[in-house]
Amino acid sequence: MVFVKISQENYKRRIEFIRKTLQEQNLKGMIFFNPRSVFYLVGFHHIPTERPIAMILPTEGDIGLFVPNLEINHVKDKVPIVKDVFSYFEYPDETHPMKIFAKALEERKLADKSIAADAPGAPTYWGYQGPALAEIIPKAKITILNELIMDMRVIKDQEEIALINESCKWGNLAHQLLQEYTHVGAAEIEVVNRACAEASKMMIKTLGPDFKPLGGATSAAAGYRGQIGAGSAIPHATTGNIFFKKGDTLVTGAGANVSGYRSELERTMFMGEPSKKQEKYFAIMLKAQNAAIEAFGPDVKNADVDRAARKVFKDEGVWDLVQHHSGHAIGMEGHERPFLDIGSKVVMKPGMVFTIEPGIYVHGFAGFRHSDTILITEDGSEMMTYYPREIEDLIIYD
Amino acid sequence: MVFVKISQENYKRRIEFIRKTLQEQNLKGMIFFNPRSVFYLVGFHHIPTERPIAMILPTEGDIGLFVPNLEINHVKDKVPIVKDVFSYFEYPDETHPMKIFAKALEERKLADKSIAADAPGAPTYWGYQGPALAEIIPKAKITILNELIMDMRVIKDQEEIALINESCKWGNLAHQLLQEYTHVGAAEIEVVNRACAEASKMMIKTLGPDFKPLGGATSAAAGYRGQIGAGSAIPHATTGNIFFKKGDTLVTGAGANVSGYRSELERTMFMGEPSKKQEKYFAIMLKAQNAAIEAFGPDVKNADVDRAARKVFKDEGVWDLVQHHSGHAIGMEGHERPFLDIGSKVVMKPGMVFTIEPGIYVHGFAGFRHSDTILITEDGSEMMTYYPREIEDLIIYD
Repeated sequence: MVFVKISQENYKRRIEFIRKTLQEQNLKGMIFFNPRSVFYLVGFHHIPTERPIAMILPTEGDIGLFVPNLEINHVKDKVPIVKDVFSYFEYPDETHPMKIFAKALEERKLADKSIAADAPGAPTYWGYQGPALAEIIPKAKITILNELIMDMRVIKDQEEIALINESCKWGNLAHQLLQEYTHVGAAEIEVVNRACAEASKMMIKTLGPDFKPLGGATSAAAGYRGQIGAGSAIPHATTGNIFFKKGDTLVTGAGANVSGYRSELERTMFMGEPSKKQEKYFAIMLKAQNAAIEAFGPDVKNADVDRAARKVFKDEGVWDLVQHHSGHAIGMEGHERPFLDIGSKVVMKPGMVFTIEPGIYVHGFAGFRHSDTILITEDGSEMMTYYPREIEDLIIYD
Repeated sequence: MVFVKISQENYKRRIEFIRKTLQEQNLKGMIFFNPRSVFYLVGFHHIPTERPIAMILPTEGDIGLFVPNLEINHVKDKVPIVKDVFSYFEYPDETHPMKIFAKALEERKLADKSIAADAPGAPTYWGYQGPALAEIIPKAKITILNELIMDMRVIKDQEEIALINESCKWGNLAHQLLQEYTHVGAAEIEVVNRACAEASKMMIKTLGPDFKPLGGATSAAAGYRGQIGAGSAIPHATTGNIFFKKGDTLVTGAGANVSGYRSELERTMFMGEPSKKQEKYFAIMLKAQNAAIEAFGPDVKNADVDRAARKVFKDEGVWDLVQHHSGHAIGMEGHERPFLDIGSKVVMKPGMVFTIEPGIYVHGFAGFRHSDTILITEDGSEMMTYYPREIEDLIIYD
């Protein structure tokens, strides 16, 4: 049996955890407006628009999901844990959806209780405008718990770790194809689209009908994002109208979306034999990444991993080329807190998953950064990505 | 000369409009935290992360842009209108970026003035946590003008209309290829990736080096988003692990990102000769779209276009199959306000651009929706998309 999605039992555990947390604070329920939190709690994946959605999680009774009409069959067909699905026709419509939601809260006896919410109201998105929760149910006592779900997401459970591991595999394939397809004279986007299309096709056909590509048609992806030649010196360059040339330094990025979970794999590569200058910076970057990887483990301070990378850059005399910290947590989003940053107060625990990606950037010349995904375990850490990191494996001979 | 991006003169006009608006309200400047608003005002395109950015627009003096270190060369290289670029090293770091920003506001003599902001603080995104503007500059009198930029964006100028027209062309190519490549037995994502890759490659190579693919490697795109067979009855289905079968009803979507501007083209198609039932619903949908298109024009109420489509559905006895209103504005975002909705109070003006897309959905069977992009002109309206809308052009014979 192929494991490709969070189990219904896991959703139930998450819901129970929230219910206990609410009961401890004498709260009768919680409203969730954040689509990602709703996805985390019940697995409802949809396209957020100007039409608000809201989930009602009472401490007792059925979970309610309030959606626009165009999502109602979507929920009924796909989200077995939600029994109480109710809807509004449209936004803006003649009656504002939040008025209809207020009535639903009254009917469910929550409009005059002490409840929590993940935000003051539905997010302003794609032109949505609407009242705060406090305006539509003025008799309720509302506590905003905006960090509750993000706090839960920091430690990944066994299912989440399995999905991130699966993501690493397909990111590896996309990256392998990217390296194979890259050659002098090719257009960036042509190579990228070919690698993404092939890897995504193989991922979907391998994992079979239980696997839903929540990341869309390029659920497995690899690319350059404009980090080609001098562009590689801009850490967050964006995709360009660029053709590969001999001598280019390349910085890549790859990953796959497996049921909403991600991984990160980045490599510095060269178009043809690297120069001494390219080799020098590559070696320093790799030394810093190795030092940081060595530092990971349970009960280690996040800040100390960043310090380990910083020390190498300072010792090597390239501190002025550093433009960012050493990494971030990853899971349901590309970046998540906590960060690998000297300012972080977090201490690592088993089940945390991070990227490790110290980099250096020589403006007008090139940038140098690998990124790997790493899991904190009971007795150390485990590299989840496994693409070669040494220079000899990262040279493209045309 | 190929026109593929907003001119510097246009950015200057936008900035001047804001300055006048601020002066009329005796405000000394405005802070922008929304990345899309910063892009609209000065053309800075970047990847938003947990690291906040903020633009300072004083009524007099240079425009300031506050960015993380990893964006500083990006701004200096790419955004000529911004002369005052300043940065912080990283988030979270030992000193919170907002403390550094507060100091910058003091140095620019704005920390104790009456100023505006587009939001109370930097958006919570990818794990960012931070204080509100009012907390870091307590002596300032802050007016939140959160709708100012969206209000400006409602009427498109000549350059914006030209970019949306350009977007329609490449959306048309992507859709044409999607239709050509679709065949019985093929996987949804395989056909989609092939059409997107080919159309994007041709767009980039046609428009040349001045064109930057801000939409990434698939800046021209067409797809099904899971709207295949019974999936087409879910208006916001998502990409699936689906293979085309004879008899499927298909609902498509296509468009292209041209320097941040978009268009929308959607078609209902059939795998092989449609059945009587498929033909019947298709004809009703097309009749409703035609009625709505007829209704467009300057000084027409948005609500009346929605009513024109509703009337057809009611007269034809299929009102119970309707799940959404008739369309929305489009430009820098996939959906924008105002909406084509009976609840809209907006009256159409020349320069507004809308999608027109009334649809009907038979659960378990199929959905029927075309979408076109339409411009309000001085004396009527103009269809910007031009893909065939009649059934005989939308049948795929394998």
